[in-house]
Amino acid sequence: MSFPVDVVVMAAGKGTRMKSSRPKVLHRLGGRALAQHVIDTAARVSARSVVVITGHGAEQVEAGLVAPALESGEALKLQFVRQEPQLGTGHAVQQAVPVLPDDGVTLVLSGDVPLTRPETLQALLNLSGGQRLALLTLDMPDPTGYGRIERATDGSVTAIVEHKDASEAQRAITEIYSGIMAVPTQLLRGWLARLDNRNAQGEYYLTDVVKFAVADGVAVQAHRITDALQVAGVNSPAQLAELERAHQRRVAEALMEQGVRLADPARLDVRGALVCGQDVEIDVNCVFEGRVELGAGVRIGANCVIANAVIGAGAVIHPFTHIEGEKAGVSVGEGALIGPFARLRPGARLGREVHIGNFVEVKNSTLADGAKANHLAYLGDASVGERVNYGAGSITANYDGANKHRTVIEADVHVGSNCVLVAPVTIGAGGTVGGGSTITRDTPPGALSVARGRQAVIPNWQRPAKKKG
Amino acid sequence: MSFPVDVVVMAAGKGTRMKSSRPKVLHRLGGRALAQHVIDTAARVSARSVVVITGHGAEQVEAGLVAPALESGEALKLQFVRQEPQLGTGHAVQQAVPVLPDDGVTLVLSGDVPLTRPETLQALLNLSGGQRLALLTLDMPDPTGYGRIERATDGSVTAIVEHKDASEAQRAITEIYSGIMAVPTQLLRGWLARLDNRNAQGEYYLTDVVKFAVADGVAVQAHRITDALQVAGVNSPAQLAELERAHQRRVAEALMEQGVRLADPARLDVRGALVCGQDVEIDVNCVFEGRVELGAGVRIGANCVIANAVIGAGAVIHPFTHIEGEKAGVSVGEGALIGPFARLRPGARLGREVHIGNFVEVKNSTLADGAKANHLAYLGDASVGERVNYGAGSITANYDGANKHRTVIEADVHVGSNCVLVAPVTIGAGGTVGGGSTITRDTPPGALSVARGRQAVIPNWQRPAKKKG
Amino acid sequence: MSFPVDVVVMAAGKGTRMKSSRPKVLHRLGGRALAQHVIDTAARVSARSVVVITGHGAEQVEAGLVAPALESGEALKLQFVRQEPQLGTGHAVQQAVPVLPDDGVTLVLSGDVPLTRPETLQALLNLSGGQRLALLTLDMPDPTGYGRIERATDGSVTAIVEHKDASEAQRAITEIYSGIMAVPTQLLRGWLARLDNRNAQGEYYLTDVVKFAVADGVAVQAHRITDALQVAGVNSPAQLAELERAHQRRVAEALMEQGVRLADPARLDVRGALVCGQDVEIDVNCVFEGRVELGAGVRIGANCVIANAVIGAGAVIHPFTHIEGEKAGVSVGEGALIGPFARLRPGARLGREVHIGNFVEVKNSTLADGAKANHLAYLGDASVGERVNYGAGSITANYDGANKHRTVIEADVHVGSNCVLVAPVTIGAGGTVGGGSTITRDTPPGALSVARGRQAVIPNWQRPAKKKG
Repeated sequence: MSFPVDVVVMAAGKGTRMKSSRPKVLHRLGGRALAQHVIDTAARVSARSVVVITGHGAEQVEAGLVAPALESGEALKLQFVRQEPQLGTGHAVQQAVPVLPDDGVTLVLSGDVPLTRPETLQALLNLSGGQRLALLTLDMPDPTGYGRIERATDGSVTAIVEHKDASEAQRAITEIYSGIMAVPTQLLRGWLARLDNRNAQGEYYLTDVVKFAVADGVAVQAHRITDALQVAGVNSPAQLAELERAHQRRVAEALMEQGVRLADPARLDVRGALVCGQDVEIDVNCVFEGRVELGAGVRIGANCVIANAVIGAGAVIHPFTHIEGEKAGVSVGEGALIGPFARLRPGARLGREVHIGNFVEVKNSTLADGAKANHLAYLGDASVGERVNYGAGSITANYDGANKHRTVIEADVHVGSNCVLVAPVTIGAGGTVGGGSTITRDTPPGALSVARGRQAVIPNWQRPAKKKG
Repeated sequence: MSFPVDVVVMAAGKGTRMKSSRPKVLHRLGGRALAQHVIDTAARVSARSVVVITGHGAEQVEAGLVAPALESGEALKLQFVRQEPQLGTGHAVQQAVPVLPDDGVTLVLSGDVPLTRPETLQALLNLSGGQRLALLTLDMPDPTGYGRIERATDGSVTAIVEHKDASEAQRAITEIYSGIMAVPTQLLRGWLARLDNRNAQGEYYLTDVVKFAVADGVAVQAHRITDALQVAGVNSPAQLAELERAHQRRVAEALMEQGVRLADPARLDVRGALVCGQDVEIDVNCVFEGRVELGAGVRIGANCVIANAVIGAGAVIHPFTHIEGEKAGVSVGEGALIGPFARLRPGARLGREVHIGNFVEVKNSTLADGAKANHLAYLGDASVGERVNYGAGSITANYDGANKHRTVIEADVHVGSNCVLVAPVTIGAGGTVGGGSTITRDTPPGALSVARGRQAVIPNWQRPAKKKG
Repeated sequence: MSFPVDVVVMAAGKGTRMKSSRPKVLHRLGGRALAQHVIDTAARVSARSVVVITGHGAEQVEAGLVAPALESGEALKLQFVRQEPQLGTGHAVQQAVPVLPDDGVTLVLSGDVPLTRPETLQALLNLSGGQRLALLTLDMPDPTGYGRIERATDGSVTAIVEHKDASEAQRAITEIYSGIMAVPTQLLRGWLARLDNRNAQGEYYLTDVVKFAVADGVAVQAHRITDALQVAGVNSPAQLAELERAHQRRVAEALMEQGVRLADPARLDVRGALVCGQDVEIDVNCVFEGRVELGAGVRIGANCVIANAVIGAGAVIHPFTHIEGEKAGVSVGEGALIGPFARLRPGARLGREVHIGNFVEVKNSTLADGAKANHLAYLGDASVGERVNYGAGSITANYDGANKHRTVIEADVHVGSNCVLVAPVTIGAGGTVGGGSTITRDTPPGALSVARGRQAVIPNWQRPAKKKG
């Protein structure tokens, strides 16, 4: 039972209740656009192509979605077609059929339903078998308002009955249509041609294909699930928040399943890929964004925000640490100690057992093994050698108001407190910079370099008195 | 059906289970005293006056509550009467009747029941119609211990039956009295005069008015609700916390309804008024206090604490930012970037596209459009011109130990790293201050000003050796 | 009914599903190893001795657990025996019996079941009465898979029936065995000798003692509870997290019961002992570790992490404060104001009304009453006198690259901004240090000490131009 799968993603709606200038399907869940979740899930059921039907905010939507990589390494074929005006779900899919090849099965998904599991879609596709119309249905304790699934005694579906048209007996049915179906494309093409809009809304309904299938003697099957989250759509910020939490709960469970220890699964936010080694511990209220790798035994303290970073085995990230790698990334070596109140910015590359302490910012700088900057300091555009001790309050003056320059601090240098290293400048290996010095010229290896005023005393100094206010 | 409404708020109780030196009704929920919630709700049903009955901690309570502004702009009339000693709910209201005009309806509320909705009270008042005794009742799955509402076949109330006096059939009733009633004041006055304290507790019970109303042939009606939160009282820290979370959940829902996107509605705390433009996003674990306005498109990062501030459209507040405007307020211009780890204090006024970076504190200072202080710096009592770049580690020395002075940094100045600007001082427009300089006198426009020691070298310097022991 | 109690703790299992290199019973809940909870609970039922049966990771387990102090002040007798290989629960207890005295009752507990209440165990021991076999049982709505407790009409237990062996009627029983029993040691010794391993698993089952007791005519009683948490075991990170939250909820409830006001009981983590005076308020998302004492009226702001510290009455700890006392401890005086973004490290001893402001780090330093360090500063190995004002950006250079030295700042000193005090150094009482000074020699009392360069001006300075890049 093998057949090509082409996916149609409905993404033309406005989402008025979102009360946002952003098209609904671009709202983010777990750091990704809603419709991107749907496309990424399509890739996981080996879809051949995805056709996104855009309408409201079409340009934004088309710019905001990307084709995911397939297991083969190639990108999924991603196409966009526009539906303007929006005349119903059937009309939407009509826009897509010209680009759908006849030899496949079309899987119809909604761009605002992000949490469908690939296994569920695979089961639906299997049920279709390339020959049948397969509907994804949900068993819902209170189905009031939804279209009910009427089945024959052999289990095949005979109709979707709208709530308002349903008899008492039909209203007792708790199985409803989810909006997701798999249908052989050739059949779909014919059925879509037969749609009409003679109804109260004046819209073309995709669900009418059930009627045509039954009329044509094509089997209609339903894959029924009970997990409403998988077919829940986002229509409002409240629903978005609800699915966000459900998604995060799933992520937390998957991490714990792998052995990650979470102090509070309800207070973890992962917006991207979090890859963890053995015996990783994550304290409460942490946020991870982009791709983050945590090596074996890494401990992340409470209230950390970490994006696009690789943390080496055994490193300890203390509370209140903010790491943002963006494109350049951040890397932290094995056994490093970072924070609390540390900030690592793009291009921070820290070696083994580097210590970065409180109120220290590191940007676009390399720190070799064993280097330390423990207190209130700034390292920007710097190359710091092994075992360097960079004093409290010291600053690399990397910006002259127009250009950025590099500071080189060679191995075993000891930089005193509250120094300014005016780049471009090199502090020679093994040298010492006296506290409070502003260094503007290169210093020789092994030397003590000082640049400060002489200490003077004005005895019996009268401090200013408080002025009357 | 229009009649004046006077509100009586019971606020004399001690609240022993709070185990606090603070009177119970002054404990805060969502940043406001419990009884203040009740008074503010009274204003929303257009009450003419509010009489608060105080007892335990009367002076504190009277000092701790304020009359809210009415829609008309006037303040609600707020009076206090004391109940000493406390001899029951009926006795409490007896203290208030001397100041209640005869032409109105008295709405009896409890100062420790903060979450009643104005719509509910309005419905109760409508039920009273200025003529009837109207009780707010709650349908409660397990009413054990509570007084049951007995109704006649026409739905009118015939009695409140105490649990201990209830028959088997009466105990099956799940409707209980909430403690809230609306009663025509003239009738109330007469009934209160008939109360006695011949009961086990020796107290005067307000609920006895039901008996008198029935005896007098005055109709008694009940407005029944099912949302227990609306009539839940606070008697312990656990109940206070429970209602706090319920209140916060309500606030979060209202914000989402307006279109605000919350990463986690369960991790938002609003203790005051949060006013949001379109497309505002608030990340996890933020706290807002006092009045905070967020312009369109503002993004608030994780773990921010923001009080009394106005944030302009498009500004981005990065994680771990602490803003506290207090009375002077804080304003942040459009498109500004703040944080992470920034602190804005009272009187910080930031123009458009100002950048305030990590470990930077701004207090009582104005920063004109495009000014930047990105790293480890202090700006206090300063006026900073447009496009100024204020270097890492630089400090305005605004305090001479007795008085505070202003620092003026004119437009386009570039202040180097680790500088000290000793106020009062002016850095002339377009000037540059060399890194590590302590500036004590005004500097001319366009000049480079430096104040630092000459760099000296002591070659082959022997660093101290680690002492034994 | 008095008899000695000896406790056997099963702690030999591997805990494969934890996917950790750490033995399961050493995983931490509320800051303590799982098995430590069990041992500490044993101390609270006045156990005479505890025998821990180790196996997987035996050395780690034996090193990771300590004997708690008894009320008498003595330490509980803690012994370890090894079970290698692991041949079942009965085999485990067989390893322990050689060290169990005959005159007592053996209480069998599991090292991975941390939340049993002492009252529950006491009730079980009372039920045993030194003569009977007493089983702790749980009433479980869905007992599928668990061994059912079959009772005679007089309530005594007649058998534990495995799920697979249970009849339809037996499967309807919702009472299951919890794994915890109390058994007179002399009887236990005899019964263990009769165990065999003729079963599918080839293991020796402790539950077989029920059969022997019944056969011998020894009464078997069950103490049935309904709170599943008390007998819940930890087999996976998800279960660990679930029990962690349950434990924290218990801690939060106990604190609120004492009068502590918690902004959100679900966002509090206490990993040790938190001792609070009256009217303590704790805002959202705080973490407490080790022993922390908060005096009356202390307020802890949002997002604080506090370990091993004593905070005096009336002190206010603002948000984002990190206090870590470790062994040396941290003490904060009455009425002190700390934070936001402050860090107090081991040996910080702050007097009354000390102020420590944003981005300030204090380590191994004493600050006398009224001293202030409000902005971006480091105080390490310093003694700071009364009323000292320590300027923004100032640093004690306590480390010469090899040794640490002390800085003494006498009373009423005013240290300017961005100073460096190079230790060992003393600033004489009442003296002033000019901003930007690096002080390397002691300064006289009452003097103004300055060490800075002269301010020079280079007019019409041409700032570097942006390079094309």
